[in-house]
Order: sequence, then C-alpha cells, then structure tokens
Amino acid sequence: MLKIKRIKDGRKNVDQVKELLDSRSGDNLAKYRDVAADVLKKVKAEGDQAVLDYTSRFDGVEFDASELEVTEAEIKAALKEVDTDFIEALKNAAVNIEEFHAEQKDKSWQKQKKPGIITGQVCRPLKKAGVYVPGGRAAYPSSVLMTVIPAKVAGVEEIIMLTPPDKEGKVSPVILAAAEIAGADRIFKVGGAQAVAAAAYGTETIPGVDIIVGPGNIYVSMAKELVFGQVKIDMIAGPSEIMIMAEKDSNPAYIAADLMSQAEHDPLASSILVTDAPELIGEVERELEKQIEKMSKKDIIKESLENFGLMIEVENQKAAMEMINLVAPEHLELAVKNPFELLPAVENAGSIFLGEYTPEPIGDYYAGPNHVLPTNSTARFFSPLSVRDFVKYSGFIHYSKEALKEASGDVICLAEGEGLDAHANSVRIRKEN
Amino acid sequence: MLKIKRIKDGRKNVDQVKELLDSRSGDNLAKYRDVAADVLKKVKAEGDQAVLDYTSRFDGVEFDASELEVTEAEIKAALKEVDTDFIEALKNAAVNIEEFHAEQKDKSWQKQKKPGIITGQVCRPLKKAGVYVPGGRAAYPSSVLMTVIPAKVAGVEEIIMLTPPDKEGKVSPVILAAAEIAGADRIFKVGGAQAVAAAAYGTETIPGVDIIVGPGNIYVSMAKELVFGQVKIDMIAGPSEIMIMAEKDSNPAYIAADLMSQAEHDPLASSILVTDAPELIGEVERELEKQIEKMSKKDIIKESLENFGLMIEVENQKAAMEMINLVAPEHLELAVKNPFELLPAVENAGSIFLGEYTPEPIGDYYAGPNHVLPTNSTARFFSPLSVRDFVKYSGFIHYSKEALKEASGDVICLAEGEGLDAHANSVRIRKEN
Repeated sequence: MLKIKRIKDGRKNVDQVKELLDSRSGDNLAKYRDVAADVLKKVKAEGDQAVLDYTSRFDGVEFDASELEVTEAEIKAALKEVDTDFIEALKNAAVNIEEFHAEQKDKSWQKQKKPGIITGQVCRPLKKAGVYVPGGRAAYPSSVLMTVIPAKVAGVEEIIMLTPPDKEGKVSPVILAAAEIAGADRIFKVGGAQAVAAAAYGTETIPGVDIIVGPGNIYVSMAKELVFGQVKIDMIAGPSEIMIMAEKDSNPAYIAADLMSQAEHDPLASSILVTDAPELIGEVERELEKQIEKMSKKDIIKESLENFGLMIEVENQKAAMEMINLVAPEHLELAVKNPFELLPAVENAGSIFLGEYTPEPIGDYYAGPNHVLPTNSTARFFSPLSVRDFVKYSGFIHYSKEALKEASGDVICLAEGEGLDAHANSVRIRKEN
Repeated sequence: MLKIKRIKDGRKNVDQVKELLDSRSGDNLAKYRDVAADVLKKVKAEGDQAVLDYTSRFDGVEFDASELEVTEAEIKAALKEVDTDFIEALKNAAVNIEEFHAEQKDKSWQKQKKPGIITGQVCRPLKKAGVYVPGGRAAYPSSVLMTVIPAKVAGVEEIIMLTPPDKEGKVSPVILAAAEIAGADRIFKVGGAQAVAAAAYGTETIPGVDIIVGPGNIYVSMAKELVFGQVKIDMIAGPSEIMIMAEKDSNPAYIAADLMSQAEHDPLASSILVTDAPELIGEVERELEKQIEKMSKKDIIKESLENFGLMIEVENQKAAMEMINLVAPEHLELAVKNPFELLPAVENAGSIFLGEYTPEPIGDYYAGPNHVLPTNSTARFFSPLSVRDFVKYSGFIHYSKEALKEASGDVICLAEGEGLDAHANSVRIRKEN
C-alpha cells in the first residue's frame, strides 16, 4: 500500500510544500565541492596526465591520451549496432527539436537614431561548446539531442561532447548514435569533474570551450559551479519535479502514469498533484497501486512517491495556480479541459504540458521544446536550455563629429558630476580640436 | 616620464598580453569568499538583526530596521539638492538608454506545427530585481540608470536598490536622483555581502529578489557568486579594460585621452593601444605626457598605465583584429576611418565604439547601449547587461489525442530504449484507453 503525503487547504500550507522540496537538496555540499576543486586544480596544472589519472581512478579505465577521443570507426560501428527503429525515432525527434529551437535565433540589428548616431547590437554564436553527457545508468540519448542541437542551431563552430567511458573503455552506442544525429563535432571519453576541468581549461588533447552545458552528478555540478566565470555554464541542476493540475473529470489513470514517469528518474524526484477535486486524489492513488506493479523501476517509484510525492487539495483553480507559481515546478501538466485559458496565469514553470493528451514524455523526447529545465524552484528566474545560451552580444555605437558635439554638454556634465575628469577630457578634446 | 610596456609583433606575443591581463586578478580569493560566506549564513539565519550588525561594523552606522529604507522625503530632498543641469543630463541619458533597451524585448510565441500540435515559449519578466549600487568613491549615478532601466523595460514588478550608507547614514543625492529618474521602486541603505544576502534570502524588512545585478567590491562579487543558483546574477565582474585600434592617420590626442579615461577608473584597469602604425605609438605617448598633468586622478592613471597599459605593434589590420579577438576586451574603440567595415570581424568585445568621434564616455553615459559589460576576457562568452537578464522563459506543448497517437510509436521506442518504462507507460495508456 503506497503512502503518499496529502495536504489539505494547500494555499495555507505552501511552506510545507517548499520544505519538502528543499529537503531533497543535501545541505552539506562542501565535501563534494572540495573534491571537485582538487580535480580542477590538478587538471589545470597537469592537463592530459591528470585527466588520464582520474579516468583510471574513477572509471577504472587505463587510457593513453590518444585513446581519449572517440574515433570515426567507433561512431560508424555504433550506428550499425543500434536498432533502426530507435535511430529513426531519434531522427524524427531531432527534426522537431531543431525546428523549435530555430525560432529562438536572435539577429544583430542597428538603428540610426538621427543622422550621425547609430547604435546596435551584434549577436554571435559562441565559438566552442562543451556538452556533458552522463554515462552509466543515466545515459540518455535524448539529452544528447537536447544539448547539442541548440548549440548547432546557434551556429557554434565546434561542439565537443564529454562522456565517461564504461569499464571496457567504451561509450554506449545509443549515445554515439545520438551525437552523430545531433551533430557533435568531437567526442571525448572523459567524465566527472575532470571532464569539466578539461573543457574549461583545455588540455593537450581536449580543447578548451566557451560554455559547458548538460546535467551530471554532484561532482560535475560542483565543478561547473566552480568554473563559472572562467567559462559560461547553463544552470545549476538539482533534483527534478513534476506538478500536475487536474480537475474533477481528469483521467486518474493518466495522472497516475505521469506521476510515476517523473518518479522513476530518481528517488529524490518529486511528483505533485494539485486539484480542487478531493475525490480525484483517491482515484489516482488506486490507479497508482494498479499500475506500479508492472513498472521495472517500481522500487525507485515507490521510494520517490512516498518520500517526496504530494497530493494537494485546494479550493479552486485560482488557488491551484497560486500553488504552482509558488512551487515553480520544472514540469507542469495542466491536465484540464481549458489549459490554454490557464496558460497566461502560469508565472513560474520550466516546461508546460497542456491538456490530458500531452504527457511529460512527449516533451522529454519529442515535441521540440528543450527538456533541460530549471529544477528545484529555480524556474522563478532560470529558463530552459536554449539557443540563447550559445550566443553572446556586443553593443556598438557610432557618433559623427557633429553628433558628439551636440551630446558633449550632457556627457561632460555627467562625467564631471561623477568626478571622472579624464572622461570629460576625452569628449572635450574632440569638441575643441 | 611615463613608462608604458610595448610589444612588437603582437600576434606572436599574444600570450604576454593575456598574462598581463590575468595578473590583475588576485589568485587568492579564498579569504574574501570565506568572509562573504559567513555574512550570507548569518543574514540567512538572523535576518534584519544581522544586516544591522554588519552595517554598524562595516559602514559605521547604527540603524534600527525602520531606518534601512530610504524615505520619499529623502528622495525629494535629493532631487532639489542636485544641480538641475545634472538632472537634465541624467534624464536625456535615461531616454537614450530606454530606447536602446526597448529593442531587446522578446515576445512569447506559439506555432501550430500541424493540426493538433502546438508548441511555443512564454517570455515573462522576473518579479523582483535587486540592483546593487556601490557607495563611496565609486558611486556612479550612470550605473544606476544602466542597471535599473533594463529591469524596468523588461517589466520587472519591483526593482529594489541596495546601496551602502555613508558615515552619516545617508545615500549620495545623485544616486537617489538617478534612482528616481530610472524608476527604482524601493531603496535600502545596505551594502557589501550583507546587501547581497538580504536580497537573496529576504529579511523582515528587505524583500528577497529573483536576480541580483550590478558591480560591487570583492565581497559583493564573492557573495553574488555564492548565491548564484538560489537567485540569478548578472555576471562576475573583474578589472576592466579598453583596447583601441588605430591607424597612421588616427589622432594621437584622442587616443591618449581615451586610454586615460579607462585608466582613471582603477589602478587595475588596463588600457591597450593596438596599431599597424609604429610611429603613432610615440605620438600617443607624447600626448599622454602632455594631457596627464591636468587630470585630477593622474596618480591612478599613471599607476594603471605603467602597470597594465600596453602599446602593441602589429603588421596590419588583420593582425590587429586577431589580437582583439584573443583579448576579448570589455571596451573596444575602432578609431579608424572604416570602422563599419571592420565590425563583422570583431568576434569578442563587450561594447564597440566606431570611429574617432565615438569615445568610450559617450557609451559610459549616454548613447544607450549598456555600460555593465563583461570584463577580463569574458566577452568571449558573456554579454552586456540587458533586458534579457530580467526575463525568463517557459516552453509549452499541446498535443491532441490523435497527434499523440501518431507520435506514440517513436516516443515509446525512445523511452524503452532509455529503459524508462513508466515514461512509455504514460504514452501507451493514453493510446490504449
């Protein structure tokens, strides 16, 4: 019998919800940070040799530097090894992802404000991007598509994938196939903090990059945090969550299935139902009991649901929306009849799934929007991974002699007001010459 | 006699340039980080009381909590106290800044891919923004405009300014006047790491925010780094720089003036001339000698130019552009006849000033583009502060029953390929029901 926490009168008890979500984040990250800092320092100083040492120690593989990069032959072999249906499905997903992200492209522009005054901004792709792809149990080819394709659409010149080797020194063929479909330029068999270090600083073999993106374990996250500022990073990922808003007529079987699909990721994942129909909660619970037995990851699902699952009763849809905005969930399903009417009221959510026939997996794999999302309430201020992450801007200005003369009074006044007379001098000398 | 380093054959010696720039960043930031971490912890736990304690200790002012916020009366008094010319110049600058940033606004969009499939993204302003404004010597009203106006244009609901009080418990009237013109909603007299802490966590008196922007001292920077992920931050600011590209006919008096205008900010600032006209370097040096004596900050200018100034000789314009892109300067002046022809070749620069009559101060104060810029070579991947910093995105998806059915084969295949059968189940149950 599943025991999932229930909260009545959700609006008054929002603190309880936030506490539950926060309790998933380890308080003491210092020890992981220290390990990551050591790895960064050593790789920065020793380059390839340090990368190879850590790969031996953490992945149990003895490489020499020439074996770090995945070869053309390995990629070809992988493409043959993977099921053709799976390749076809990846390709179809890639088309949707590319189409969606193409809409995010920004353009350079300039305006002539008046004769002699031009201002504008240049938007350019970053030159090199590093995409981290976890290995082992959490090796998801879909994440390869979701991280590589936005970089490709942005126009990044060289996309470098970093992923840990298995005990045999290999990378999963599905990962290699996805990398090939998405358009990664080079792939290196290196994982953990040492992969982040190599990408941030560059080594003899692995090129330094301008941005490092993609999810990873706690050491990867800590290393990304530590190199932020020396390179760009996408976001700090924490445990993930889904919130489903449902009503009296919503289908409890669908809701149960979707709560489980989030829960199967991780015992720390949180699956939350919020509804103004108290009777629905019991129906969903019965469906969970019924469906869970068939799931291969039922132990993880059970642990996740019992520790971090929540059933929240609210008095009406408005109260449900308030809860949602306070929680700022990574994934939000509006499993209701009028989802588009509610959309404008959603202030904080990473990705929004509208209507009963839009389950989260259609977004995880296929529809086009990115699945690398702000977790753990950070949708309040962070955004899904996008083409925007892979570009940079420069502002630019041109003033003619006459235009400068006209503006010079104000500029000199402001510069002198700030006590910066070399600033004033630089305008004055042009006016007087 | 000024002694400024000279580098010949710049392209071969780019490492020397990078080393000089890097040498400005203290290697041992750990002690500042530790102090900032202590302040964060205490403010998080104790709220206002900790803020007041630190304000007493670091700013020498005894406040009670009710005195932390700047009053309407103080703002009115400030507006009267400040010179009307200065107010007028601030207002003119504000108009230009607002006009430029309005072009950066992004829109929500949605597409119907085919009947039954809608994808899109929602772009929304962050709810609350915290703008840090340094006090004391580095109190620049222009920075108030540059940080508050983009937030305002983005549509941020509440803009909270944080700035340290002087020994009398006051904030400089020019700062208050600029805040009023720019449209800050509330102003608190709190500085340093305690200001960042209060804005990140919220206290009884100071509201927690979603993003903290603006330059500050080393403790502010460290605190911003440490709260990143709990809130958004703009960037990690380091020592600043200007690079001026000039040619045979460029006016040496203008170049000297602009090198000094960067140098007067900070002994750690770096002013670099790069040119294919060796004879120009001597002329600029003579102009520096001539102009420096009149500058009120001539000691800072001298220290900056002698320690971190550079005159770089290159063989041609192409080599100059290569140098520029390797350095990725915060400010770049193209003091040449054909600046717009060179613009497409600039890959890395925070803000670009085109032509001899566009000195950096016109951008610092007036033209419109932001002056909060990526420093210390981070223009390789970071961008100027912009409206983009004050918004967030959500992706969204809608599939009809039929559309889901059509996609279900691919999605189930991908989910099962990743071993996530609860994901497959969530699609299958809708198909079969």
